[in-house]
Amino acid sequence: MFSKEVYVKRREELKKLVNSGIVLLLGNGEAPLNYSGNTYSFRQDSSFLYFVGLDTPDLAYILDIDNNKEYLIGDELTIDDIIWMGNLPSLKDRAAEVGIQSVVPTSELTNLLKGNRTVHYLKPYRYRNQMMIAELLNKNNREQVVNEYSIELTKAVIKLRLIKSPEEILELEDAGRIGYAMHITAMKMCQPGVSEREIAGMIEGVAISAGNRVSFATILSMNGQTLHNHDHSGILAPGRLMLTDAGAENVNYYASDFTRTTPVGGNYTQKQKEIHNIVLQALNESVAMACPGIKYKAVHRNAYKVIFEGLRAIGLVKGDTEEALNAGVPGLFMPHGLGHAMGLDVHDMEDLGETFVGYDEDTQRDTMFGYRSLRFGKQLEPGHVLTVEPGIYFVPQLIQKWEAEGINSEFINYNKVKEYLDFGGIRLEDDILITDTGCRFVYNKRLPITPEEIENAVKG
Amino acid sequence: MFSKEVYVKRREELKKLVNSGIVLLLGNGEAPLNYSGNTYSFRQDSSFLYFVGLDTPDLAYILDIDNNKEYLIGDELTIDDIIWMGNLPSLKDRAAEVGIQSVVPTSELTNLLKGNRTVHYLKPYRYRNQMMIAELLNKNNREQVVNEYSIELTKAVIKLRLIKSPEEILELEDAGRIGYAMHITAMKMCQPGVSEREIAGMIEGVAISAGNRVSFATILSMNGQTLHNHDHSGILAPGRLMLTDAGAENVNYYASDFTRTTPVGGNYTQKQKEIHNIVLQALNESVAMACPGIKYKAVHRNAYKVIFEGLRAIGLVKGDTEEALNAGVPGLFMPHGLGHAMGLDVHDMEDLGETFVGYDEDTQRDTMFGYRSLRFGKQLEPGHVLTVEPGIYFVPQLIQKWEAEGINSEFINYNKVKEYLDFGGIRLEDDILITDTGCRFVYNKRLPITPEEIENAVKG
Repeated sequence: MFSKEVYVKRREELKKLVNSGIVLLLGNGEAPLNYSGNTYSFRQDSSFLYFVGLDTPDLAYILDIDNNKEYLIGDELTIDDIIWMGNLPSLKDRAAEVGIQSVVPTSELTNLLKGNRTVHYLKPYRYRNQMMIAELLNKNNREQVVNEYSIELTKAVIKLRLIKSPEEILELEDAGRIGYAMHITAMKMCQPGVSEREIAGMIEGVAISAGNRVSFATILSMNGQTLHNHDHSGILAPGRLMLTDAGAENVNYYASDFTRTTPVGGNYTQKQKEIHNIVLQALNESVAMACPGIKYKAVHRNAYKVIFEGLRAIGLVKGDTEEALNAGVPGLFMPHGLGHAMGLDVHDMEDLGETFVGYDEDTQRDTMFGYRSLRFGKQLEPGHVLTVEPGIYFVPQLIQKWEAEGINSEFINYNKVKEYLDFGGIRLEDDILITDTGCRFVYNKRLPITPEEIENAVKG
Repeated sequence: MFSKEVYVKRREELKKLVNSGIVLLLGNGEAPLNYSGNTYSFRQDSSFLYFVGLDTPDLAYILDIDNNKEYLIGDELTIDDIIWMGNLPSLKDRAAEVGIQSVVPTSELTNLLKGNRTVHYLKPYRYRNQMMIAELLNKNNREQVVNEYSIELTKAVIKLRLIKSPEEILELEDAGRIGYAMHITAMKMCQPGVSEREIAGMIEGVAISAGNRVSFATILSMNGQTLHNHDHSGILAPGRLMLTDAGAENVNYYASDFTRTTPVGGNYTQKQKEIHNIVLQALNESVAMACPGIKYKAVHRNAYKVIFEGLRAIGLVKGDTEEALNAGVPGLFMPHGLGHAMGLDVHDMEDLGETFVGYDEDTQRDTMFGYRSLRFGKQLEPGHVLTVEPGIYFVPQLIQKWEAEGINSEFINYNKVKEYLDFGGIRLEDDILITDTGCRFVYNKRLPITPEEIENAVKG
C-alpha cells in the first residue's frame, strides 16, 4: 500500500476526468473453489486497488461527484470475528489510511445510489459483481450489466493507470525480481527426465514465497508451438526445448511477465540456435526502437521484419520484405502480438477493454492475421510499461491450413518449413519501461538470454 | 480419472436413489482472477467429477430418470481452438471414456429441461452456476436458486460419496503422500528469521509440483491461537511455535489435511511440551477409539475429556470431569470440532450442507459452544475418511470474554490461564480411514508427531 497522499491524488484526478454523476467502484468478493468456505486466494480488483488501496473482500467505493463526497462501503468486524481472526484495525481506521473519512455499512449501499442519478461503473468481469450491479442498478440481465458500463469512467481510469508513477515502478521492479528468481529456478531444473509439472509447481512456489501468486497461469512446456497451453504433463526429453512464460504478482499486486526458451539439459542444436538468434534479434531491435513518440505497432512490424529476414536467410521464406510484411507472411510463424501493457494486471486493464487500452483515434487495430493480435499498438509515452515478446513457432495445424489453402505460397517454402514440424517454438520476453528518451528494462538484471548464457544457466 | 465402469456404476446407483424427474449436474466454469482472460487455476465441481469424471470447464450433465437417458452437455473445440491448443480428444470421445453416449451442444441445454418436469439440482456455490440455474429454471433471484435445490438429490449424492471405494482410497493416499512432503519441508524451514510467507509459498509449490494445488488455503503462523488466520507476514522468532495446517489436492482431485505445530529452531520449552503432549494424547486416544458403530460425537467428547484432564494436571482447570464436560469447559481451549469428512473436498461435500453430511436422524448437532462446531458427529462406518484434529489454544479475546462474563469460573483457574496469553496454540491433525474393525491412517507414513520426532525433523 502506498501513502495516503497517493490515493487522495488519484481520486482527485479521477474527479476531474469524470464530469458528473456517481462513480461506483466494486471491490471483489471471495471466489469459491469447491464450496463457499474454501476459496481461491483473494485478489482485489485492480482499479479498486489503484484508487482505494484496500485489499479485503466485500468493499465498495462511491465518489459522488455532484456533491463532492466519497464513501467507503463495508462492514466492521464483529466480536466473533475478532475472536477467530485476532485484533485487526477497524475499517474506519483503514479507510483513514487511504484518506477516506466516511465509512458506510453495506446495507446502506442501495440508498447511496437512489434517485435519478448517473451511476458510472466499470465493466464487471466477475459473476458476483455482475449480479451485484444488476441488483443495485435494476438491470434486467447480465447482458445489460456488461453493456451499460461507463465509457467515460473507463477512459478516465485507463488514462490514469496507463502512466506508471515512480512508486509504481518500484513495485514493478520488485515483481521483476521475483520473476527473475522463478526463471532461474526453471532453467536449473531443465534436465531430461524432470516433469514439466514439477518445475511449474516449484516456480509457482517461488512466486508465492516472495509475493502473492503467479501473475498468470504459468506456461511451461516442450510444446511451445501450442500457444494456449497450460498442460504440464510432459517429461523433459533430450533434444527438446522448454518454453517458460511466467511471472509474479508482488505483495502490492504488481506484475512481471518473462519468457525464456531453454534447451533440455543445456545444449542447443544448430537448428535451435539459429531460430533462437532470430527471435533474440527481434527482441533486441524492439527494445532499441521503443521510445516516446513511436507507435508500438511500428515496433511490432519491425519485429516481423527481423523474423521474416532471419527466416529468409535460412531458406524458410523468400521474396521482398515489404511485400511479405504487407501480405502478413510472418503471422504464420508469430501469430501473436509483440506485447501488451503491464501494471496491476499482467495484461493491464484488459477487463476495461483491450482496444481502449492499446488503441486510440490515431491508431486503429489492424485486421490482418497476426497484426490484429497486437494488444497495444498506440504511440508510446514515458511511463508506459510493456512486454516485448517476439517468437517463432511451427504450429503444425496452422502450417497445414495455410499450405492447403495456398496462403502466401509465393513467400513460403512449405517443404522446408515442414522440416520444422517437430521443432516446437521459441519465445523470448522482457518487460520495458518507456523513459523520456527511450526505454529501459523494468528490472535491472536481465535474465540469461543469449544461447551461451542460457546454456550456462541450465548447467549451473 | 477412473475406468469407465466406475462412473457408469456411480450413475446407476444415483438413478436408483432418485426416483423420478431430471438430475442436472452443472460443472464449473473458469473463475476470473483480475479479468476474464486471467483465471484462477480451474477446479471442476466435486460432484460433477464424482459422477462424470471430466475436468474441463463449461460442461453439464443431465440424467433423465423418467426416460432413462443421459446427456453430456458441452461444445466441441473449433478449428481455431485446435490451432491454439493443439490436437485434443473430442468431447464425444471423452464422454465415451466415462460411458456417456450422447453429447449435446450447450445451446440445446434449455430444450432438454423444457416441459413440466422436476429438475433436481444441487445447491450451487459459485455465482456463475447460480446465474445459470436462475436462467435455465426461471428462478427470480439468487435466494430462490439457493433455496430450491433438491434435498432428495443432495442426500443421494452424500450417501454415495461418503463411503470411499478402494480406488478412491488410493487417491487419498496419494494426496497424503504429497501432504507429508509439504509438512516435512515446513519443519525443515522452521528456523528463526525465516518468514512465514516463504515457508507457506514453498510448501504450496510442493503441492502444485506433485498434485493440483493446496487442498485449502494454508494456515502457517506463529499465532496458532488465531483460528481463522491466513496471514503469513510473521518472521519466525525463537521460543515461538509455528502451527502449520496444510494439505494437497492430488492430480485426481482428492484431498489431504494435516496439522503439526513445530517449535521455531527445534527446541520445545517445558510449557510447550506439556501442552503438546496433552494434544497428542487426545489425538492418539481418538484414533484408538474410532471404529464402525461409534459416533464421532463420542470421540470428540473423549478428546475434550483428555484435554480437560490434561489441563487439570497442570493446574489450569479444576473440578469433576463429567461436570466440566457437561458445562462445556474444554470449549475455551478447543473451540472447534475434532474433525470432518474428507474426500474430493477437504471438508467433504460442505457445499451440500455440513449437517446433511455429518448428522442424521440418530445424531443431532449439539448447541453448546465448542461441541456445536463439530462438523461430523454421526456414527462411523467403514469407508468414512475423517480428520482427527484436537488442539489447545489460548485465545486472549475469548479468555477475556469468558472471564469478564464469569463463564465456568468454578472450573477455570483464570489467573493461571492468563500466564499462557502469549503461548499461541497447538493443533495436531491426522487423516483416518474407518475400516471394518477400527481405523487406520490414510497415508501409511505418519508425520513426526512426538516432541522428539518433531525436534529431529526441524534439526534435519
